[in-house]
Amino acid sequence: MSIALLVTDRNLTVLAQGLKQALPGVNIQCWPDITQPEEVEFAVAWQQPKNCWAKLPALKVISSLGAGCDALLSDPGLPGNVRITRIVDPGLSGQMAEYVLASILMLKCRFTAYFRQQQQASWQVLPKESRRQKVTLLGVGSIGEVVAGRLMNNGFEVSGWRRSQKTHPDYRVYYGQDQLGQALADADYVVSILPNTPATQGLINKAFFEKLKPGCFLINVGRGQAVNDGDLIDALDKQVIAGAVLDVFNQEPLPEDHAFWRHESVLLTPHISAITDQQEVIAQIAGNYKRFQQGQLLDNLVDVAKGY
Amino acid sequence: MSIALLVTDRNLTVLAQGLKQALPGVNIQCWPDITQPEEVEFAVAWQQPKNCWAKLPALKVISSLGAGCDALLSDPGLPGNVRITRIVDPGLSGQMAEYVLASILMLKCRFTAYFRQQQQASWQVLPKESRRQKVTLLGVGSIGEVVAGRLMNNGFEVSGWRRSQKTHPDYRVYYGQDQLGQALADADYVVSILPNTPATQGLINKAFFEKLKPGCFLINVGRGQAVNDGDLIDALDKQVIAGAVLDVFNQEPLPEDHAFWRHESVLLTPHISAITDQQEVIAQIAGNYKRFQQGQLLDNLVDVAKGY
Repeated sequence: MSIALLVTDRNLTVLAQGLKQALPGVNIQCWPDITQPEEVEFAVAWQQPKNCWAKLPALKVISSLGAGCDALLSDPGLPGNVRITRIVDPGLSGQMAEYVLASILMLKCRFTAYFRQQQQASWQVLPKESRRQKVTLLGVGSIGEVVAGRLMNNGFEVSGWRRSQKTHPDYRVYYGQDQLGQALADADYVVSILPNTPATQGLINKAFFEKLKPGCFLINVGRGQAVNDGDLIDALDKQVIAGAVLDVFNQEPLPEDHAFWRHESVLLTPHISAITDQQEVIAQIAGNYKRFQQGQLLDNLVDVAKGY
Repeated sequence: MSIALLVTDRNLTVLAQGLKQALPGVNIQCWPDITQPEEVEFAVAWQQPKNCWAKLPALKVISSLGAGCDALLSDPGLPGNVRITRIVDPGLSGQMAEYVLASILMLKCRFTAYFRQQQQASWQVLPKESRRQKVTLLGVGSIGEVVAGRLMNNGFEVSGWRRSQKTHPDYRVYYGQDQLGQALADADYVVSILPNTPATQGLINKAFFEKLKPGCFLINVGRGQAVNDGDLIDALDKQVIAGAVLDVFNQEPLPEDHAFWRHESVLLTPHISAITDQQEVIAQIAGNYKRFQQGQLLDNLVDVAKGY
């Protein structure tokens, strides 16, 4: 009776202790300190260690620690015969909306520029961008709708863009490649909430940046695969765009030598715009572990073909 | 016919060009490049250079570039016989509210901590503070009311504290020294909008910090004189409070060797939470210059005894 936690990017004390309390008698172990790995049937994974799956031959269930599991599904070592579950947390859209609002207000107040001035002990007033109020959201599904509402409630003018036609009573929704230029032309802030699909990969590239007006900012809380990293760095260097707040990346964790880390027009965060609530995680994982032990159907099972 | 601009902390191109357009034939000069300073009758001042007034013996009017003029009035070299005007810009409260909301959301999303991690190329997820929603505003006058409204509209629970009793329909207002402990006890964020008066000087000191619960943040957009700097640094070092966002200081510009510049729990900005709109400034200064030339009563004249 054991659960292996295969997570490399965060402190797991709260989760491990919570699972111990919820599942007395079950051995909760954190990678790499797994005793008898050949007996582990149930794992919790996020940013899993490389080549970990080969060491867990008895594995039956992997519980993704997040709502997404594309990084899990694209792992070439993933065994084919395991069931995968994900966390479903209704608070995630609200968190993402708060991250986007925080980013835009931070850029508007120029906090990132002042932070860099602070490193030089430089007291210089920078012009405010008080009249910059137009936001274009790329991807206006169920999360995008919450983001749009929060922004409009704070006085921003919102437009949306999506792959296929769909109208919304509160804001203009552009659609398809033909209307991308119109959607971008007037934006002060472009926010990508796009998922990772063949149609979105590399969409945010040189041609995309050339459709923006000068001084626009990019915020990416969708998936890193939508961005061509080299084109983004080029656009920042040439001041085609004014800056970027990035929470997601083509490769995560972002490699230490990637230019984003040290670029002065980038603020980056480690894929945290929507973090699943610890209490939700503990309850859902413990519940599924009990169902697994009793041979019942698991909650929030992932359809591997669909990817979610 | 000349106006001298005595401003040390910002680029004045927009203001100088705007005044030239609004007042053709008037010589707009920036310190220190003032020809015939002995003839200057009208000056615009903010963070004025030291000992500048003695060089302008003909001065009749000083137009403060901001809404406040306490730094001007406390300058020991200020001539006694000049009239002082200030800028009145109804957008200032809204800007201050936006700065406060931006600060709180930035702290809640932990952007300042991630920014410091970025400098080290460190990818580590930090716990979110999603449940921290309680804000106490010190000073709930006309500006505080706008700040409170913006925060409540974004889901924060607001309380106020002020010197004297006054109730508000939408939030609890504590008052006086006796109720300060109650006002602070439950706050996740304390925001000072206090003016500089004998009663507020040094209010935010060791005893004040000891009334707060652990993990609280301080945001100061009022006046720096409310803070005992040494006590604040001590409270940050000992983690009595979690961090501070500071826009105002006991001495401005903040001296280069001040510990705030390099403190890792401080984000500081150069007194910009509410910057007067450039178009407002140009129109109000040009209008007052014309009234001065025509011997008319000036707009927004400061009562030196009252201080505003």
